[in-house]
Amino acid sequence: MRHAVIMAGGSGTRLWPLSRKRRPKQLLRLFEGASLLQLARRRLEGLFAPENIWVITSANYIDQVAAELPDLPRGNLIGEPMGRDTANAIGLAANLLARRDPDATMAVFTADHIIRPQERFTAAIQAGLEAAESLPESLVTFGIKPHSPQTGYGYIRRGAVLGPGTYRVAEFKEKPTRAVAEAYLRSGAYYWNSGMFAWRARAILAEIGRLLPENARGLAELGADWAQLAGTEAARQQFERLRRVSIDFGVMERAARVLVVEMDCDWQDLGSWAAVAATRPADADGNVVVGASGLFVQTQGNVVVSEDQHLVVMIGVSDVVVVHSGDATLVCRRDAVEQVKDVVGLISRSHGAAYE
Amino acid sequence: MRHAVIMAGGSGTRLWPLSRKRRPKQLLRLFEGASLLQLARRRLEGLFAPENIWVITSANYIDQVAAELPDLPRGNLIGEPMGRDTANAIGLAANLLARRDPDATMAVFTADHIIRPQERFTAAIQAGLEAAESLPESLVTFGIKPHSPQTGYGYIRRGAVLGPGTYRVAEFKEKPTRAVAEAYLRSGAYYWNSGMFAWRARAILAEIGRLLPENARGLAELGADWAQLAGTEAARQQFERLRRVSIDFGVMERAARVLVVEMDCDWQDLGSWAAVAATRPADADGNVVVGASGLFVQTQGNVVVSEDQHLVVMIGVSDVVVVHSGDATLVCRRDAVEQVKDVVGLISRSHGAAYE
Repeated sequence: MRHAVIMAGGSGTRLWPLSRKRRPKQLLRLFEGASLLQLARRRLEGLFAPENIWVITSANYIDQVAAELPDLPRGNLIGEPMGRDTANAIGLAANLLARRDPDATMAVFTADHIIRPQERFTAAIQAGLEAAESLPESLVTFGIKPHSPQTGYGYIRRGAVLGPGTYRVAEFKEKPTRAVAEAYLRSGAYYWNSGMFAWRARAILAEIGRLLPENARGLAELGADWAQLAGTEAARQQFERLRRVSIDFGVMERAARVLVVEMDCDWQDLGSWAAVAATRPADADGNVVVGASGLFVQTQGNVVVSEDQHLVVMIGVSDVVVVHSGDATLVCRRDAVEQVKDVVGLISRSHGAAYE
Repeated sequence: MRHAVIMAGGSGTRLWPLSRKRRPKQLLRLFEGASLLQLARRRLEGLFAPENIWVITSANYIDQVAAELPDLPRGNLIGEPMGRDTANAIGLAANLLARRDPDATMAVFTADHIIRPQERFTAAIQAGLEAAESLPESLVTFGIKPHSPQTGYGYIRRGAVLGPGTYRVAEFKEKPTRAVAEAYLRSGAYYWNSGMFAWRARAILAEIGRLLPENARGLAELGADWAQLAGTEAARQQFERLRRVSIDFGVMERAARVLVVEMDCDWQDLGSWAAVAATRPADADGNVVVGASGLFVQTQGNVVVSEDQHLVVMIGVSDVVVVHSGDATLVCRRDAVEQVKDVVGLISRSHGAAYE
């Protein structure tokens, strides 16, 4: 059977004041009246049966996630006692679903991106699942075809072609400089590393066992007793002992049979308010409105965001981001949005942890 | 007996989005947790008994005013069917209180100013009431002693001295140019026209009768039947026939015996967000917070206003006014706040009358 695991663990301080410790980015309703998590789940329509869709998130968010995705079995929602990075999140999920379905094919998805159009996403995932099933020891990563020289993403260089849009991975590359990103774009042989994967559960467990044997042991123990352990102090202690490691660094970059399947989609990481603004068309003056209602007088290049259609009227102010939430509003120069994450700690200390 | 009439009829579109058609400026809680109307009433403590304090306002606001000032008799709240300017508001109030108390002394107050300190205010009002009682045909106006060359107010030139701080009025002056305002300030013989007055009810009714005889007849008819008329279509029609005219233009500038009593107070007309900001001390970077909670990072000269301690975080944005209300937020360049009143009509058309 094919299973999907949505990773929904991040906290997203860069989208303050909408995202908070208690209400992470994946739960924000900025698009189509749905949360990013709901959109991630909707993208899987027709690819996976609801009983085979899993979500791994912080134990703190489990109730909110259950409310957002009422069609998923509660037992498919995995609450981590603490974040120990993606290798451990994926490893725990792989253990749990392999125990239920030893021959499972497993695809891994993120919950904080906008990916369009749906048809191309579906086709690429379908191709990746088929590759993982026909080459059962391989690990498939999905590579986004770049149309601009982004410096904020990791890249994958493709190697030998195995089928239409399916290649061996020649090399993983760190975030490049601008000049290097332009060279990657020109060459046509590079993809953005999307953080989405497909493999047999057995294959990823084998590679974790080979490359991260201590983590593999801890994860196997947790998986064996998860029904009893979830939410307990014992689980917290076992988690704490797991070495933090990402799936890219810990497994993918060192694994034997890694493939890349091309996904030619508009793929946007919502890592900052500038990125959120980039998902929407601007008006003739370059003003962008997301989830809010905007009125602009003698202004250019502003971004207005809320979840509740709050009206923001801007007069004579340009290149400013305004984000409204019920108890706090951010007014930030557009080129300073990267500072938001640094300010959140300051706000917590000066105004109380509820704002964090 | 001494009576006070608080004029609370304005709508204050310049303080949008806090002030609305349904919630005028006088009801905003920006200072000391009280509305401007409550502060106006508190200033009268010790000067007038509650049963002798009257409020004249729009009929639309009567219930809100009653809730704000529960110690005043409901019969003292006069609801005008529509605004017909200050001569008619004052004339109606004078008719009503003269019918209850023919020898009444009457003082008239505004509800949209900050006036400090209380002791000087009380002393000046006391002096004005005494002048109105000892010279029973005179009309007393209160003149604010200027300490800066304001161009936004009307001025009064004083004439012969009648007692300590009490003078005949030599002349009323329109809003001056900057150079003229500076000359007024140097001369020491000019006061700001405060819009506050004291007189015998009989004296102001006589002058309205002499100078505005048609208005006087209409107002006398309304006053005679007010208990029956208030809130009716008949009252609305009678009001509509009253010629619009201000007390300054219609009466004070043409009346015979006009005095000015000096009030040496900090007197601030809250006519714009810039004026509201001027009532509060700024921090070391020139940022001002009124009724809100502010956090400023790399910013200067901002103003943050709300009624509910809403947190506003500003990063890298300077000289901007942010005003937060439940359903709308204004973000306006500080030197453009005079445009707010012009934008309110636009907002109403584009986003619905509830925002007006």
